[in-house]
Amino acid sequence: MLKSVRVVGSGLIGTSIALALGARGVACQMIDSNPVAQELAHDLVSGSQVFDPELVIFALPTSQLSLVIDDEFELNPNSIFMDVGSVKTEVIREVEKSTLPLSRFVPTHPMAGREIGGPHSARGDLFAARTWVITPTSECDPMAIALVSELIEAVGAELMILAADDHDRAVATVSHLPQITASLLAQSLLTTPEDWLELSGAGLRDTVRIASSDAALWSEIIYSNREEISLRAKQMHSELGQLIDGLEDKEEITRFIERGRDGRSRIPGKHGGRAREYSNLPIVIDDKPGQLGAIFNECAKISVNVEDLSIEHSPGQLSALITLALSESDAIALSAHLSAIGWNVHPILKTK
Amino acid sequence: MLKSVRVVGSGLIGTSIALALGARGVACQMIDSNPVAQELAHDLVSGSQVFDPELVIFALPTSQLSLVIDDEFELNPNSIFMDVGSVKTEVIREVEKSTLPLSRFVPTHPMAGREIGGPHSARGDLFAARTWVITPTSECDPMAIALVSELIEAVGAELMILAADDHDRAVATVSHLPQITASLLAQSLLTTPEDWLELSGAGLRDTVRIASSDAALWSEIIYSNREEISLRAKQMHSELGQLIDGLEDKEEITRFIERGRDGRSRIPGKHGGRAREYSNLPIVIDDKPGQLGAIFNECAKISVNVEDLSIEHSPGQLSALITLALSESDAIALSAHLSAIGWNVHPILKTK
Repeated sequence: MLKSVRVVGSGLIGTSIALALGARGVACQMIDSNPVAQELAHDLVSGSQVFDPELVIFALPTSQLSLVIDDEFELNPNSIFMDVGSVKTEVIREVEKSTLPLSRFVPTHPMAGREIGGPHSARGDLFAARTWVITPTSECDPMAIALVSELIEAVGAELMILAADDHDRAVATVSHLPQITASLLAQSLLTTPEDWLELSGAGLRDTVRIASSDAALWSEIIYSNREEISLRAKQMHSELGQLIDGLEDKEEITRFIERGRDGRSRIPGKHGGRAREYSNLPIVIDDKPGQLGAIFNECAKISVNVEDLSIEHSPGQLSALITLALSESDAIALSAHLSAIGWNVHPILKTK
Repeated sequence: MLKSVRVVGSGLIGTSIALALGARGVACQMIDSNPVAQELAHDLVSGSQVFDPELVIFALPTSQLSLVIDDEFELNPNSIFMDVGSVKTEVIREVEKSTLPLSRFVPTHPMAGREIGGPHSARGDLFAARTWVITPTSECDPMAIALVSELIEAVGAELMILAADDHDRAVATVSHLPQITASLLAQSLLTTPEDWLELSGAGLRDTVRIASSDAALWSEIIYSNREEISLRAKQMHSELGQLIDGLEDKEEITRFIERGRDGRSRIPGKHGGRAREYSNLPIVIDDKPGQLGAIFNECAKISVNVEDLSIEHSPGQLSALITLALSESDAIALSAHLSAIGWNVHPILKTK
């Protein structure tokens, strides 16, 4: 059983790990070059003084790893070490340059985060049900891997093993390229007249949502993985060029949109595993407190489980539209039940 | 008062208009070249036989307008005419080629829709609180504009007047370019190994959501507005090229992400008007029926209004995380109230 860790870096990820471990009785010492962050994190996680920790976790930007790695190894010569950086081949190169032997180091990447950073944003449940990738080198000590796997299980995450270069290729596609695309599209709004923006709908909003991410953090990540990103961005650049050249050809445009549909359909469902098909049940309610509670009470009464929900208000009107995502059988049962007792239920819609 | 309309085209938009008007006592006749769709729409909206309608609504793809416009004018020589197409300059060109005088025609575009089409997807509240643009030509009869404005008000939408070319430029930016961007990014997933896709997070999912839109419909729209789209897509193509060339320069990447942030921040809030700042209140609940209902009952008890809500399940775990979006004062009140009676409430987060 893991008993004590030293967390170097008291940001969102480091503090969230300590919160999750602390709740399971693991003693955590928080370290940060910024004394304010270190003290806040220490208080948040009820930190301890830890001597000779089993595990040292580097939870800082990879660009700062070289500033602490040799000192940390000298201070903790018996410990296992891990990191949580977004790009793994670069981290391994940094460790190779240091005094820390690769056998004692496990490169990892938890697929969790938030748009806001800092210890005050930390959550003990940040890693619950998230994938946590490890990319061990061939020199890695199996005992080190076992210890890190124990940590990943303890915080509720799901372990996935990948080669470091595969990991970096994968995140270039599923994480870094989406960031670049959202930022690229959002830039086109810089020169748009303000009243035109009144026409913005949910499509635009969703497509640019992550454009609000932290620029300094993302600049580090993209720079670190620039080789893989460059390959994919060039591919995208070329496909966009082809579309521009083909705008006089309806068939070409259709194929472009169809390829996008096919690509999107390959994304697995919210919790890993294949995408689940939900039935959506739209209900028009009075826009006043108590209505949602009443609906959920009816759900509970007939043991219907709500998977997701959206609310659309119509300001200046007295009604709101809520849409419940349910299994098909639950949707049928709930639709019949609510209609029978007088709710304004619309026909069930199927969607992915 | 508008009394009778003839709706030519029984798809999502035409049927939804008739549903909304029918509920306000307006007699609607549904027409469609497909007799199955026409009959379904007729039944759904309790359609009537309408002679000499005040208003004829073209609710069909603009590419099919020329097939019906002359016949409809001959059949209804006293009526006012409007359409609902996504690209307005093209529609006006089609009308100019027809026997229908421009003075009797109002080009319009309701900013509403769904990812699924057909009369069975229609909803009477589809236009509630949505913007409905009209782009009258200089020849347009003021009485025609007044009649169409009355319809827009009757279905609960908000009227906005734009010049046709401004409209087409605006939708190229806020609607057509997002579609192209999402489809472009989604294509990059076509060749991604399946296990890498297990790393997909909310960022990727949101950015490609609209890539699942209908290819035939979007091919028409993009083709119709290809001049405006081409200008903007070329700009985007050039900016992506600059980023690719600048990947060795962290400062360049930072500026790229920052420009995206600045662009995104210009989008107004969900219901038009400036973006509202909500406070988010995360609550960890047992993942079983009844819990959500209980929370909403507490909200109602202290008159707290929930603006939005997200649910994250952790499969294989017994808990779920729900995050309520509330006004700041409601969030403070609810947090104190729920904590006092034993709910697992996390600290309030501010967001836009």
